[in-house]
Amino acid sequence: MNIVVQKFGGTSVASLERMQQVMKKVLAARAHGNKLVVVLSAMSGETNKLIALANQFSEEPDPAELDVLVTTGEQISVALFAMLLKDAGVKARSLLGYQVPIETDSDFCRARIVNIDTDRIRAMLEEYDVLVMAGFQGCDCHGRITTLGRGGSDTSGVAIAAALKADTCEIYTDVDGVYTTDPNICSQARKLSRVTYDEMLEMASMGAKVLQIRSVEFAKKYNVPVHVRSTFSDEPGTMVIQEDKSMEAVLVSGIAYDKDQARVTVYDVIDQPGVAAAIFGPLAEDGILVDMIIQNTSREGRTDMTFTIPRADLKKTMRILEGTKVQIGAKDIQYDTGVCKVSVIGVGMRNHSGVAAKAFAALSKENVNILMISTSEIKITCLIEEKYMALAVHTLHEAFELGKNGTNAC
Amino acid sequence: MNIVVQKFGGTSVASLERMQQVMKKVLAARAHGNKLVVVLSAMSGETNKLIALANQFSEEPDPAELDVLVTTGEQISVALFAMLLKDAGVKARSLLGYQVPIETDSDFCRARIVNIDTDRIRAMLEEYDVLVMAGFQGCDCHGRITTLGRGGSDTSGVAIAAALKADTCEIYTDVDGVYTTDPNICSQARKLSRVTYDEMLEMASMGAKVLQIRSVEFAKKYNVPVHVRSTFSDEPGTMVIQEDKSMEAVLVSGIAYDKDQARVTVYDVIDQPGVAAAIFGPLAEDGILVDMIIQNTSREGRTDMTFTIPRADLKKTMRILEGTKVQIGAKDIQYDTGVCKVSVIGVGMRNHSGVAAKAFAALSKENVNILMISTSEIKITCLIEEKYMALAVHTLHEAFELGKNGTNAC
Repeated sequence: MNIVVQKFGGTSVASLERMQQVMKKVLAARAHGNKLVVVLSAMSGETNKLIALANQFSEEPDPAELDVLVTTGEQISVALFAMLLKDAGVKARSLLGYQVPIETDSDFCRARIVNIDTDRIRAMLEEYDVLVMAGFQGCDCHGRITTLGRGGSDTSGVAIAAALKADTCEIYTDVDGVYTTDPNICSQARKLSRVTYDEMLEMASMGAKVLQIRSVEFAKKYNVPVHVRSTFSDEPGTMVIQEDKSMEAVLVSGIAYDKDQARVTVYDVIDQPGVAAAIFGPLAEDGILVDMIIQNTSREGRTDMTFTIPRADLKKTMRILEGTKVQIGAKDIQYDTGVCKVSVIGVGMRNHSGVAAKAFAALSKENVNILMISTSEIKITCLIEEKYMALAVHTLHEAFELGKNGTNAC
Repeated sequence: MNIVVQKFGGTSVASLERMQQVMKKVLAARAHGNKLVVVLSAMSGETNKLIALANQFSEEPDPAELDVLVTTGEQISVALFAMLLKDAGVKARSLLGYQVPIETDSDFCRARIVNIDTDRIRAMLEEYDVLVMAGFQGCDCHGRITTLGRGGSDTSGVAIAAALKADTCEIYTDVDGVYTTDPNICSQARKLSRVTYDEMLEMASMGAKVLQIRSVEFAKKYNVPVHVRSTFSDEPGTMVIQEDKSMEAVLVSGIAYDKDQARVTVYDVIDQPGVAAAIFGPLAEDGILVDMIIQNTSREGRTDMTFTIPRADLKKTMRILEGTKVQIGAKDIQYDTGVCKVSVIGVGMRNHSGVAAKAFAALSKENVNILMISTSEIKITCLIEEKYMALAVHTLHEAFELGKNGTNAC
């Protein structure tokens, strides 16, 4: 049997009308003789509503019980959608995490999948034509409900596709693919026909909300081609795939940005082994994601340490730093929220020099001052003043000719 | 270990404030050294909201998927309550139907319990002090979610108490016990300290909403004493128990009524074997609960057939009867919705004559015309015009001196 895995996000199942749209996609794939596993998210807004309810009951809700609570969102989606399918004469049933089972570890609220019983799914697909599976949820070895973390339904879709060795995992969403940059910022943005897992990971880490990071990691690990496309059109979207030779020709795939940033500088700390650990250890313990880190060259045995964090964590970060201030001998701690990150992303960089220089030159020509720089194999990130964000995105998009049809064009 | 089973209804868990009230009851029982199984309903209104959602998606929702949908209501309650308990330092966890497991048959939406794994519950009670169990739900032998029918959380509570051989099942609700009649109709109504399973069954079948019928049947079958009491007071409520000698002294325990009635008469049907089956068979097939049935004496080989049904089923009933009209040779079919049932209930009737005569005399004195009569071992029911309902309840309540303190007084 040929098995197709389709995953639909929260906006795609937000109402009866939206679900009927989803049904068209499912019935079309079914009409081609495929068996389907359809993975659904909670109706948009539901998960947030449930979390708000939990916060009303507890300042720090028990993670295991929070998972019991929030998984009701997907449970509602799959029940309703299975009803629609049955009314349409399709042999279908809903499947909850523990019924598959999607076995995970016991790390509630951010569990990792350890096993999926494909024999059971294949047996069910003999009996049913469509299995409507609740995304985001699994169960641990004791049968307790777990969740895979925010956006985990993407991961559910990719994981089930990997386990069933499906040709593709189709991720249907409210955008029609992955773009060279945010079309809301830059009207020259162009839909990519293909993008590599690594590029997608860099884009996702920069806040591009098309795919959840862990699902891309999963897809990369198991080499599952992911087709990101729109629920509301029949156009092909973007294939997220392993790098192949033809893609090397493309220098840069996209420009990403992240406004949710704050810059923190700790002044005049003692420059000795262990001082970085003393600063960043407590932040890591509290789950604060420190990104770009710059340590100035030492003057008279002292140095400044600058780094970026998500803006939402600023208050917590400052509180923690005030606690370690004496220990690290810092003279002052300052922060700046008027900053943002802009990144140039492309696997082609691996084999080409001069990409960074070209980016810096383009920004400089528009008088955009670069505050910090960090680079990876396939990404160059600049921290700039927030007011230059749109200008920087436009400038870089044009500098690398992303608006023009290249080999990566649709 | 001494195990206490407490069940709380929808109004008792309707909000954070209400749940805090529930927690007081739980902590009090815990303070006495008991281990607890706390069975919760969905927050009041939730189940209806979910059913309305289902009806928006399907005219006749698939029963299995409807169960997947509606069980989210209890799932939300138990997760939130377990959070509260954990925050209060109690070793507690939530338990869903499939996690107990409460094994049922596969008759979705009205499943019957076939087995409860008490070894597993006892093992969990070694680890936890309070298990917060979702009422209303179970799972069949294939692991699919089932529900026990409306009000099924009472049944869950009684079933778990029976399985664990608990001394009592405490059913906490928004009323403080079982009354001699509806206090909203008759201010002389008095709370009963005790009532028998059979009397409770008759009262429940007459629409007294204190306990769900099946839970009382279950309690009777396994001889589980049920203590019906208020979440919002510390007063003792009403014990629902097996009949004992002292109770025989009480002639009548209560007066019940049911306004949700319609009377249907099929005129001039052929009086021959099989005609009753031809009329009532199709109604039973469609799940219509026919109650009082009267067949007039035959005149010239023909007879009239009169019976009562729930008012909500009238339209369906008339449609079915129109279909069988020719077959049974009926000349006419008429109905009347301006009727109601009033019942006198008491196990003492078994050993006393004259109860019926006394009831008829009392009603006659107030000029209340009796349209139909049906009797059981412990109940006398009269169908009367709806406008006399309150008058009849008052009259009967007074005739049997239910307002006075008897052996059954609180």
